[in-house]
Amino acid sequence: MKNKIFSEQFIIHKYLRKLNFNKSESYNFRNDGAFIKVPKNNKIIVTNDTIIENVDFFKNDHPKSIANKIVTCNLSDISSMGALPYAYTLSLCFSKNLTNDWLDLFTKNLFFFQKKFNFFLIGGDLSKSDKIIISSNFFGFVNERKILNRSGAKTQDDIWVTGNLGESAIGLKIKQNKIKLKNNEQNYYVNKYLFPNHFCYGNKIINYASSAIDISDGFYGDLNKLIFESNKGAIIESKNLPFSAKTKKLIKDKKVNINYLLSAGDDYELIFTSNPNHSSKIKSIFKNINVKISKVGTVIEKKGVYIDNNKVNFINKSFDHFS
Amino acid sequence: MKNKIFSEQFIIHKYLRKLNFNKSESYNFRNDGAFIKVPKNNKIIVTNDTIIENVDFFKNDHPKSIANKIVTCNLSDISSMGALPYAYTLSLCFSKNLTNDWLDLFTKNLFFFQKKFNFFLIGGDLSKSDKIIISSNFFGFVNERKILNRSGAKTQDDIWVTGNLGESAIGLKIKQNKIKLKNNEQNYYVNKYLFPNHFCYGNKIINYASSAIDISDGFYGDLNKLIFESNKGAIIESKNLPFSAKTKKLIKDKKVNINYLLSAGDDYELIFTSNPNHSSKIKSIFKNINVKISKVGTVIEKKGVYIDNNKVNFINKSFDHFS
Repeated sequence: MKNKIFSEQFIIHKYLRKLNFNKSESYNFRNDGAFIKVPKNNKIIVTNDTIIENVDFFKNDHPKSIANKIVTCNLSDISSMGALPYAYTLSLCFSKNLTNDWLDLFTKNLFFFQKKFNFFLIGGDLSKSDKIIISSNFFGFVNERKILNRSGAKTQDDIWVTGNLGESAIGLKIKQNKIKLKNNEQNYYVNKYLFPNHFCYGNKIINYASSAIDISDGFYGDLNKLIFESNKGAIIESKNLPFSAKTKKLIKDKKVNINYLLSAGDDYELIFTSNPNHSSKIKSIFKNINVKISKVGTVIEKKGVYIDNNKVNFINKSFDHFS
Repeated sequence: MKNKIFSEQFIIHKYLRKLNFNKSESYNFRNDGAFIKVPKNNKIIVTNDTIIENVDFFKNDHPKSIANKIVTCNLSDISSMGALPYAYTLSLCFSKNLTNDWLDLFTKNLFFFQKKFNFFLIGGDLSKSDKIIISSNFFGFVNERKILNRSGAKTQDDIWVTGNLGESAIGLKIKQNKIKLKNNEQNYYVNKYLFPNHFCYGNKIINYASSAIDISDGFYGDLNKLIFESNKGAIIESKNLPFSAKTKKLIKDKKVNINYLLSAGDDYELIFTSNPNHSSKIKSIFKNINVKISKVGTVIEKKGVYIDNNKVNFINKSFDHFS
């Protein structure tokens, strides 16, 4: 019976069908593919991220956390290009040991995020695998003349960062038993690792940002990619880097190393640059959306990233999936 | 040094960059995503297929074969919806043991198919994994009023099949040491398994076909999906089913079972239905493109698939990735 229960058609019918929100584009998952119709003057943004058991999450992590991660890493890319989410495909590789409970919790959280950010499942593929591997393409719409990318930063532009840095990275160290904190603190940070939030308002700043990148491989590494693509440099003032009061105390108490927090991945906040003339407009936008925003530095002509005038050495500073 | 060689940036720079054909849509793989701009009056078709080591191919299969498979299974879906290929994303999960030679051969064959069928790599993701897992989304364009799908078959429509059936399925049995043939015969069929061709002219029949499906899960199963979605039945005449002379001899000599050949996957031929009035037009199209076409049966009002008046029992007849 177990095999019978987890036939492809059963999984589609019981767990995945509801995720298409009855949109005609998906053909109700009954065709060889799906279609996308693009609103006039818009382009489609396409992102692709894959998460793998024992690499991007732990085997026994809650299925809601795994759903959260595949959505967040992709939506963060959609937002960083100034687009609004539209739809996604899911390539799900599951083992036969999967339970109904697991699938139920996993797809319920996908449903939650779809409702929250207004997108639907357009198609996908189911395969057998020893490990859980989830690959997803997300699609978003953006005005064709307003796409944000990494290469537009100008000398003298302000460098802004949304939210707080390093919290998910501390959660990972706790999960790996490499840091020991008080119970309630541990829970706080582990939750940040398991259930990341992304900065979802990239579309609000498309008229003001000159370049943008989401922080998925650590602040240092992603800032470096942005200024490299813009062919510029950056001066960062360490006192302006955004950490929560909780995290500042851990840094002060030497429980965590600030360089680690700036090199580790999974913040899903946004780094963007903007002409200083837009400074007050940007502050007002972030006040309206109620999101923390910090001016952390300035784009300079001279190549490289400088923190308080010390050049950052990038060897081993950016996370590389193959190193 | 080995880790250094296979950094993500190295793989992108040395092997993947050339696959974007310098198209601006890919941002040269230097952004959080890519964009698609759709020609007027067209829709984008999206397909998603994943292939996994030890499931869809054998561990030591030639890298050219693995590239061939990820392209063919997706292009076959694009063609079956009447679309022309445009671009694709690749989510590549590789182990660290991968060699330069492997990557070189794999990407060279991707390049070959891209040139042949006119599409380019728009983006993707690289991850670490014990096994090779490749997931891909393909994008194609089709006139928005001419999308082919599974649900348009009408009673009395002709049922057509392109090419020959069952050759890849015989190759698989040989690879599994379940059939033993003469050496040159073995090579012929194993090649059909390793290097499948898809029917690539779906776009040529969009004005004549009422429904279509590609054969990726076996003729029986896919025909059943088509008539189920069209809410019809089908009568098939076994004498008209297309097998090569070589395969007909194996069936006659009882080396292979015809039911197996009709139930196994990976033909990547097209089943389509069409009004009998279009019969001569269809023959002339297939003469022009020099592809074998066979009228194998008729759509009927009564549900079910009948071969020479015997109803086909579908239990275990259609391949299911989870059963």
